[in-house]
Amino acid sequence: MRALVTGGAGFIGSHLVDRLVARGDKVLVVDNLSSGVLDFIKDHIENGKVDFSNTDLKDLDALKPLMHGVDIVYHLAANPDIRLGTRITDTDLNEGTIATYNVLESMRLAGVKKIAFASSSVVYGEDAPMPTPEDHGPCLPISLYGASKQAGEGLIGAWVGTFGLQAWIFRFANIIGERGTHGVIFDFIHKLKKDPSRLEVLGNGLQEKSYMEVGDCVDAMLHVISNTNESINLYNLGSNDTCSVRNIAAIVVKETGCTDASIEYTGGDRGWAGDIPKAMLAINRLTDLGFKVNYDSEEAVAHTARVLIQEIMG
Amino acid sequence: MRALVTGGAGFIGSHLVDRLVARGDKVLVVDNLSSGVLDFIKDHIENGKVDFSNTDLKDLDALKPLMHGVDIVYHLAANPDIRLGTRITDTDLNEGTIATYNVLESMRLAGVKKIAFASSSVVYGEDAPMPTPEDHGPCLPISLYGASKQAGEGLIGAWVGTFGLQAWIFRFANIIGERGTHGVIFDFIHKLKKDPSRLEVLGNGLQEKSYMEVGDCVDAMLHVISNTNESINLYNLGSNDTCSVRNIAAIVVKETGCTDASIEYTGGDRGWAGDIPKAMLAINRLTDLGFKVNYDSEEAVAHTARVLIQEIMG
Repeated sequence: MRALVTGGAGFIGSHLVDRLVARGDKVLVVDNLSSGVLDFIKDHIENGKVDFSNTDLKDLDALKPLMHGVDIVYHLAANPDIRLGTRITDTDLNEGTIATYNVLESMRLAGVKKIAFASSSVVYGEDAPMPTPEDHGPCLPISLYGASKQAGEGLIGAWVGTFGLQAWIFRFANIIGERGTHGVIFDFIHKLKKDPSRLEVLGNGLQEKSYMEVGDCVDAMLHVISNTNESINLYNLGSNDTCSVRNIAAIVVKETGCTDASIEYTGGDRGWAGDIPKAMLAINRLTDLGFKVNYDSEEAVAHTARVLIQEIMG
Repeated sequence: MRALVTGGAGFIGSHLVDRLVARGDKVLVVDNLSSGVLDFIKDHIENGKVDFSNTDLKDLDALKPLMHGVDIVYHLAANPDIRLGTRITDTDLNEGTIATYNVLESMRLAGVKKIAFASSSVVYGEDAPMPTPEDHGPCLPISLYGASKQAGEGLIGAWVGTFGLQAWIFRFANIIGERGTHGVIFDFIHKLKKDPSRLEVLGNGLQEKSYMEVGDCVDAMLHVISNTNESINLYNLGSNDTCSVRNIAAIVVKETGCTDASIEYTGGDRGWAGDIPKAMLAINRLTDLGFKVNYDSEEAVAHTARVLIQEIMG
């Protein structure tokens, strides 16, 4: 099995690469290192287990030759910074929607027939029921990142319906863990590293979302792909509960030892325009396939805080 | 009220322009005439009721200055040929998704706060319940055209959620009528004009969809906009029943007088890869607002056949 992993040097992608290498797949990582970190997969490259191509998915012509002989594409590359869309409006269009088009088009031209795509819970938009099932509608995302993920899903549907592709679409909850390069825990640790006396929290801290540990996430992806075979397979990936931002702040303060830090809320019900204050996915489709999630949200947060504190504070 | 209508020289757009002019709105039509026909709005231009700009929506810089002073954008421009995506894969991306991004971005920069968007029933994909309600999910379109409409919806959701836009999204059934420039009735008449002895029908003819007359469509759009005021307003527009392709063939054969034509089916359950064989929208949200659809599907087909036969055969 030859796998191409876009964003394979990134946070989630590098964990997926670990699993694929461990089970003996041949892996080609395609990453422009805009947020990926080569160190995450350096050992695999040095051991000859992973080929690496520093290629930008916006460059269709550069992508085409990389698809030859590939059995499945794991398309994880994306702009990871959801907030960025509030300031720069074409990043998600270019790095998300157009990049996904290029991935699909280069697959079509090379005859590659399978894709697994990292979509997101943010496609459900605001006011979805909690927990949110896969068949919730209408999906009207409120962030530019969410719009690009929805556009990616639609493009994949079109390639399945028109060109006979087979696809797995995963709507991720907040994925956290080792090698995290962004997100609330990452941000909190960096803020406390800079100033251990105070922690600024965006919003009122009552935001409450579901968190999934990255190892659980990539194990779930591979479990679903091994156990499903529809032309298009859509699965929420998350944990069975939520953790509030206030709770995350408390956990990070405790784990960093900055227990005297004052926690200061910027106020409002959300971190930024386009943020969804409360989100929890229904994961019964996943668990019905026999998958067991190891970490609940709070355990995933505490585990992540510990490993990121090691990575960031040393 | 100053309205900007993208695709305003096109089939549906020109009917909308008629209505807007009739009620006294100031109208700027932006159309690159790739499928639009200047003749459709020539009288309004000559009467000074409509300004016209031959501008391509793919050109963001050209679009920006047109937005100044606009109160509402009716975004109807798109590639109208759904089948094209089976051969050329970037048309819907460019003319649909990226064009919609450019419309939204130029609106944001100019402070235009309202948009009405022509989406489509094809966003629901295959195997949706009939009639299909607006809250059906998951929406996984199977055509590249459908993917671009879904991407447009997502972008609009993002601009509403992030930048405070107000939006009306209309998911159109098959819209037919005077000035039609594409679609099954248009195709049948052209085939019979070329060869009155036979009519080739794509698929087995058992495809069965809901048809809405274009006057009903634009009246419904304006009715909904006048009677709703959420930040995002999503409405199916269609009629209350369906008409089969076999029935359409019989109607066109009768209305053209080509009653001896042999009707030949290419076979298969659909016209082309990415075609949805059966579609009917639930329109109770529309009718609950007090709107009455004038034509049922068969009446709309017969009416359209008569007017297009006049336009095409003279």
